Amino acid sequence: MRLIEAVPNFSEGRNQETVEKILEVFRAVDGCHLLDAHADGDHNRLVVTVVGEPGPVTEACLAAGKRAAELIDMDEHTGSHPRIGATDVVPLVPVRDVTMKECVALAEELGERFADELGIPVYLYEKAARKPGRRKLENIRRGEYETLKEEIDQPERRPDFGPAEMPSAGATVVGARQPLVAYNIYLNTEDVGVANVIARAVRGSSGGFANVKAIGLEVDEGVQVSMNLTNFRSTPIHRVFEFVRREAEQRGVTVESSEIVGLLPEEALIAAARYYLRLAGFDPDEQILEYRIAREE
Amino acid sequence: MRLIEAVPNFSEGRNQETVEKILEVFRAVDGCHLLDAHADGDHNRLVVTVVGEPGPVTEACLAAGKRAAELIDMDEHTGSHPRIGATDVVPLVPVRDVTMKECVALAEELGERFADELGIPVYLYEKAARKPGRRKLENIRRGEYETLKEEIDQPERRPDFGPAEMPSAGATVVGARQPLVAYNIYLNTEDVGVANVIARAVRGSSGGFANVKAIGLEVDEGVQVSMNLTNFRSTPIHRVFEFVRREAEQRGVTVESSEIVGLLPEEALIAAARYYLRLAGFDPDEQILEYRIAREE
Repeated sequence: MRLIEAVPNFSEGRNQETVEKILEVFRAVDGCHLLDAHADGDHNRLVVTVVGEPGPVTEACLAAGKRAAELIDMDEHTGSHPRIGATDVVPLVPVRDVTMKECVALAEELGERFADELGIPVYLYEKAARKPGRRKLENIRRGEYETLKEEIDQPERRPDFGPAEMPSAGATVVGARQPLVAYNIYLNTEDVGVANVIARAVRGSSGGFANVKAIGLEVDEGVQVSMNLTNFRSTPIHRVFEFVRREAEQRGVTVESSEIVGLLPEEALIAAARYYLRLAGFDPDEQILEYRIAREE
Repeated sequence: MRLIEAVPNFSEGRNQETVEKILEVFRAVDGCHLLDAHADGDHNRLVVTVVGEPGPVTEACLAAGKRAAELIDMDEHTGSHPRIGATDVVPLVPVRDVTMKECVALAEELGERFADELGIPVYLYEKAARKPGRRKLENIRRGEYETLKEEIDQPERRPDFGPAEMPSAGATVVGARQPLVAYNIYLNTEDVGVANVIARAVRGSSGGFANVKAIGLEVDEGVQVSMNLTNFRSTPIHRVFEFVRREAEQRGVTVESSEIVGLLPEEALIAAARYYLRLAGFDPDEQILEYRIAREE
């Protein structure tokens, strides 16, 4: 079964009726599984997580985008989270048997449909970006809805698809990125300084692993190195765990436990098992019972 | 999705036409997935591996049992492998979301249907055994078809279900057991003696782990500790791996790699990942994307 995840963000987190009407769209599409929905009043924003085969997932995102355009007027919107549109951003994520290249093609197709069928200006970002300056969401959202409305017809701010003028539904950013794994490692210490030092060592921005963001944190459960792994295929969980363990040991501290926050593709855990058990010549598609069955169906 | 595996053994490994007619039955049942079929001429025996939801799998086993009874005459059968019937033995194995208790109930029901609908004497074995002496297959098969035919009406050899006289299809053993994982660990040594010493240390019969059978072997790829794990839930792969690694180290030998032969339920690998990553508070059903989707369908 081919699977993608989509995490569309909508600019409504206060009006429960509007939130429900958007969620209804996702629930109504066969083969699109609504895994999570988080409405935040302060942000005035709804973050939805759906998974399924590419067709149903992108179909549901487009239909929800239409619904959001009908219900949300960006000229009336306020909220603490940066945003430029009713459907603010739609990241597509390859989960299983889908390449990043295919996900980019899906994002392009979905972006074109937002433009052609809904008349919404569309920007492509992350792996789908067509201009280097549009890889990062914050560049596209600079000045938010209000500023972009003024600048949208300037050459460097013209959308990749759709009109160079702003409708009341605002603009939408569509793209493809790797699944994000939120991963924390708890240390047997009361000194958050140790976690901070290790966070600096492990994260890419200060010389550690690419695809790892990290900070030291003191939470109720103890001291942790709190991380986001933005590409678990290139920088796998088990390597990050072993690195943090070694760094902690150098400081006389042991690792107590680790924690996955939210969801992850099972591939990430199977990769860890293969690494630690030194499994040679193992073919998951042939040797894992459940994969064999899924393939036959 | 609830899953069981069945590994029915039939007493025909030479006549390809008969083998095909039996396999056809499994292929014809919707929801019963034929994963493997091995016909051995020397044993004159066919070993089939099927997986699916309990209903289709047991239905297919019964239908194949009927076909085998029509096609195989045990009075004509010869072969080097011990056997008492056309359908010689049907182990049912819990794979996913099915308890051993439920598997025992399925085995009892299937055994009754072999007796009632096909007129075949049935013995319950392993976890489904109703008499302590019938836990082990070799006790039930003592003297094979020819002797059992003479002794079947004696009190200690009367079947659990069905007639106490032998039809030409012979008798069938039905039961429930844990999935078997064939697992080998390769050592960086040319001395098979080290593998033999470790095999004795790790296997239950000489004081090691329950549910582990082991021998040392020299094969083309090198020296290995060759094991069968008969209950990977109680005696997990990762504990066995760590134990063998430590024992090898004590002898100045390192572990080169390990190997899963054939199929295993993915649960076994996810358990290994959780162990090595020290994952705390992890709920596979909630946190593994694919499990969430499977549950919703």
